[in-house]
Amino acid sequence: MADAERTSGFAPSDQLTPEELQLATRNHGMPLEALRHAITPIGLHYLLIHYDIPVVDADTWALEVGGRVERPLSISLAELHQRPQRTVLATMECAGNGRARMEPRALSQPWLLEAVGTAAWTGIPLGSLLAEARPHRDAVEVVFRGLDRGIEGGIEQDFARSLPMEEAMREEVVLAYELNGQPLPPQHGFPLRLLVPGWYGMTNVKWLTTMTVVDEPFTGFQQARGYHMRRDDDDRGAPLSRMLPRALMVPPGIPDFFSRRRAVDVGGCRLEGRAWSGHAPVSAVEVSTDGGRSWSAADLDPPPPSPWAWRGWHLSWDPARPGEFELCCRARDDAGNQQPVSATWNMGGYANNSVQRIPVTVRDPAAAPGASADRT
Amino acid sequence: MADAERTSGFAPSDQLTPEELQLATRNHGMPLEALRHAITPIGLHYLLIHYDIPVVDADTWALEVGGRVERPLSISLAELHQRPQRTVLATMECAGNGRARMEPRALSQPWLLEAVGTAAWTGIPLGSLLAEARPHRDAVEVVFRGLDRGIEGGIEQDFARSLPMEEAMREEVVLAYELNGQPLPPQHGFPLRLLVPGWYGMTNVKWLTTMTVVDEPFTGFQQARGYHMRRDDDDRGAPLSRMLPRALMVPPGIPDFFSRRRAVDVGGCRLEGRAWSGHAPVSAVEVSTDGGRSWSAADLDPPPPSPWAWRGWHLSWDPARPGEFELCCRARDDAGNQQPVSATWNMGGYANNSVQRIPVTVRDPAAAPGASADRT
Repeated sequence: MADAERTSGFAPSDQLTPEELQLATRNHGMPLEALRHAITPIGLHYLLIHYDIPVVDADTWALEVGGRVERPLSISLAELHQRPQRTVLATMECAGNGRARMEPRALSQPWLLEAVGTAAWTGIPLGSLLAEARPHRDAVEVVFRGLDRGIEGGIEQDFARSLPMEEAMREEVVLAYELNGQPLPPQHGFPLRLLVPGWYGMTNVKWLTTMTVVDEPFTGFQQARGYHMRRDDDDRGAPLSRMLPRALMVPPGIPDFFSRRRAVDVGGCRLEGRAWSGHAPVSAVEVSTDGGRSWSAADLDPPPPSPWAWRGWHLSWDPARPGEFELCCRARDDAGNQQPVSATWNMGGYANNSVQRIPVTVRDPAAAPGASADRT
Repeated sequence: MADAERTSGFAPSDQLTPEELQLATRNHGMPLEALRHAITPIGLHYLLIHYDIPVVDADTWALEVGGRVERPLSISLAELHQRPQRTVLATMECAGNGRARMEPRALSQPWLLEAVGTAAWTGIPLGSLLAEARPHRDAVEVVFRGLDRGIEGGIEQDFARSLPMEEAMREEVVLAYELNGQPLPPQHGFPLRLLVPGWYGMTNVKWLTTMTVVDEPFTGFQQARGYHMRRDDDDRGAPLSRMLPRALMVPPGIPDFFSRRRAVDVGGCRLEGRAWSGHAPVSAVEVSTDGGRSWSAADLDPPPPSPWAWRGWHLSWDPARPGEFELCCRARDDAGNQQPVSATWNMGGYANNSVQRIPVTVRDPAAAPGASADRT
């Protein structure tokens, strides 16, 4: 297992279960070389779908806004399209990103590092719709309910989450019907989803069908039981909200198909990646080429066009000799949050933003005459 | 492990390795509820990427056609777009689909059942381009080489595969630059890929850069070593080519998040799915609701608009009583191929088209008053 640990940072003490494999084969990670794209192409953005992708008839679908409001609303997709729109560029990460790198491992979708993506989300500002519905003065939260239905923790449920009123009214929060300029694909929540820039992915309810203004905190499964940082069974835990900082690197060189171990030629290499935080803009990215013993500041690209999108970074690396190296990167944000070498263990395997580690073999191409033999 | 076997048909005798998990989190399966779409939306089609998605500059990219031809060609993307185009609707499946359901399990991408998709591929007929290059009379194969480079079996290589001349000249074979009417996404081979309807996915070389006409069979890794049905290390094995028949079912009812076990209410349920074969049109689909002890013929939808696309099927199921059921489906094609209960084991874990099995709990909703408790 020693080699496996070096390869992926994944060191399972228990067998990866058939259930985890089922989840891994249906949910999609973003291959890390896609960090090269400032906006993740459709089909490369990560996807985590709790139940099934529901079938939605756009002609009969309507968004229902109700609960503690003076003017309940029912709005068709065509009507939504006629309202003033806004596009928000935002990085979205699953709260479970890094789960399979925690020890012992929580049993759920076994993400390593790839549960992330950045997209241009177009829709209507949530605040404008809420203002139109005129929440009562006792309103404390809005509950967002999707059409995706399943069983979790023994409870049959539609996927549903809530937001405090003050978060829901923030100007950057939208109900999105387009992704990267195209109608929302089925797997991203067609015809409408919530998008709360800066928050972990579970917040962004897909296949939205109802918004209910409530006068006490929502106690649904995904809000009160799931997505909490719990130390043990007796700990109610703290709810997850905004993304902790993380830098990721495009794995340099070329991979071995099975091990994914990287081979880089002697003589200079550009290291690059992107970094984000849901708390504040990224203020620094540092890179280590010796497994974290020493760190160098990377150059940050110009700030992204949106404060909610990841920021590019790069650094030249000139490995002068062949050998084995371990590349790492870590981000810091303006609020003083810094990626840890190892994150706080918790029962759900959430928010593991410990530094990425990429084992690399630097080789002398002149010393490997057979390396390119398989050419026509 | 008994319950795990029932859940997925996946019964690992050995621990799923960190390397397999790394592959499972970067390659994408098609969630099986997406079988509802006759044409798989972009982002839901399966993806198997041996190395990294390469960066391609479309402005400087050109397709080079050479080797045993009278007129070597170099064609830009703009020039390709000006030629007569053809759209082919085709189902594509990975040769390794079902690998993780074989025992013992071959170490590679651990697909269960979801490595499939159907797309409308638009491009230029390969035969027209080859005719223009005028192959010499000694031409036996065309070698297709991609820009994706990595190490596999200890050999550094570009991904490359060949086709016999007679297959390459078939009218349905295209060099595709569009997927479902959109420019080829990076992950599907931008700017150009080969598309050979009816063949397993490895045939369809992505990020195509050269086509070389050769006068003896290509011996590259992916052709001569990979993608063979080998019984043991001494067996050279038979090369994989056309897809064996397979029927898949949309898992009915609703899932449990973690186990994916399905719950269906008493009182009638439509079973539906799609079936395909690369050898001949699908002639029949049969369904079992008792784990394969008895079978009923499903109704086939009208033939698809393309002989290379999957065909829809459906069957009403009326489970009159609560209980545990195991649903299965199997396809037969006009060439007489039928899906087996268990496929022939082989070293690479290829072509496992054994029947799908879906454990389902049928329940009486009236008897579960708390089932919908988590509602706002």
